[in-house]
Amino acid sequence: TGGSVTLVGAGPGDPELLTLAAVRALRGADVVLYDDLVSPDVLAFARREARTMLVGKTGHRPSCRQEDINVLMIGLARQGKRVVRLKSGDPGVFGRGGEEIAAAHEAGIPVAIVPGVTAAQGAAARLGVSLTERGVARRVQYVTGHDRDGALPEDLNGAALADPGVTTAVYMPRRTVPALVARALAAGLPAATPAVAIVDATRPGERRVITTVGDLKDAIATLPAGPCLVLIGDVLRAARSGVRAPAAD
Amino acid sequence: TGGSVTLVGAGPGDPELLTLAAVRALRGADVVLYDDLVSPDVLAFARREARTMLVGKTGHRPSCRQEDINVLMIGLARQGKRVVRLKSGDPGVFGRGGEEIAAAHEAGIPVAIVPGVTAAQGAAARLGVSLTERGVARRVQYVTGHDRDGALPEDLNGAALADPGVTTAVYMPRRTVPALVARALAAGLPAATPAVAIVDATRPGERRVITTVGDLKDAIATLPAGPCLVLIGDVLRAARSGVRAPAAD
Repeated sequence: TGGSVTLVGAGPGDPELLTLAAVRALRGADVVLYDDLVSPDVLAFARREARTMLVGKTGHRPSCRQEDINVLMIGLARQGKRVVRLKSGDPGVFGRGGEEIAAAHEAGIPVAIVPGVTAAQGAAARLGVSLTERGVARRVQYVTGHDRDGALPEDLNGAALADPGVTTAVYMPRRTVPALVARALAAGLPAATPAVAIVDATRPGERRVITTVGDLKDAIATLPAGPCLVLIGDVLRAARSGVRAPAAD
Repeated sequence: TGGSVTLVGAGPGDPELLTLAAVRALRGADVVLYDDLVSPDVLAFARREARTMLVGKTGHRPSCRQEDINVLMIGLARQGKRVVRLKSGDPGVFGRGGEEIAAAHEAGIPVAIVPGVTAAQGAAARLGVSLTERGVARRVQYVTGHDRDGALPEDLNGAALADPGVTTAVYMPRRTVPALVARALAAGLPAATPAVAIVDATRPGERRVITTVGDLKDAIATLPAGPCLVLIGDVLRAARSGVRAPAAD
């Protein structure tokens, strides 16, 4: 039978936040190409006989170039393999999924996407907050902390960041948070706006600091290394530490 | 044992997009309070002996008032029941989760949240597009099509909508899409910007129309009744119809 490529969202970290479709795709895969942010507990859903290959790509560590990942993925699918490209969070939210989908289309390889819970939604759930709230936030936005060159995107919309009716999630902001905060404050966001920085959201080692936009730069520096997310907005006034789903038994 | 409340995201519709945690919570529930947009296939994960109660709340049909849902939910938990409040998509994205969390906290009832795949991410996956894309969209935003009074929120940020580097998902926009389009165009969004309107995203009856912002109002009128979502932005140039995950067998 013919090979295929399935982009699968691994969710924010906790393997319980995988979808049934993700588990099914992992169990059916001949090869799993995974990012360095994917939990080992998630990878454990693959069959023992499946090949699993770390291709990196997230974080700031040296990793395979995107073009090399595409060549590998397409080459394996052409050999008739069912290839799962496993990405942290949702493949459609800062996952560079579009480039891999385009490569598969160009090669005439069937491609499908299994969406996942993105880090912002996982982190909010653990904080016990809703990202939107009547009368508080009628818009939620996810922005990337860095552009192609690792800097804050030049044209990241300052007015969109400073809007009092928005909740903002900044993905992988460590290096660029000072620039982002400066831009938001210059555009009128009050320095007292609540903010939370989270490392390893939904994982056993999750660490967070509940702060304000004005103190965010110093607060984030107190967190250990690891995948980081920042949430900003008035909905975070209700943030509580360590809300976990009760065991169902 | 004591009662509890768990807000559970049912995902966008396809039961395969439930998380493992959601399935576990449903299987452990004594009572499931569900919205009218939740698929019967999702509800089927509850135990046979669990009570399931439609409390409405999404869409424009008459439904329980939020205060009545809170009273019911807290009352059942006080009787020692494990209550699952099952919401379409993610409880933290236009799900009014915050009000229910606050009610549980006030009553001293343990409350937890199981995040879910939201409609925008489910719809994008089925269209074969990524919501973000290097060099195209470095920001993605979800906005609500209606405020407390059913109208487009007065202060919905026009500049944030018109930004060429954003992908926008509008939740439940049928009544307000003309006003939203007018505001975005007035703020400078080109009328030729790609847009897709989707009804019943990820469900067997999914219907979509691939159009532009300028033609969105007419296009949306051609869709059947049902929960509707609009996606706007240049990433949608790559939209294809009916991309489905392959069976894993």
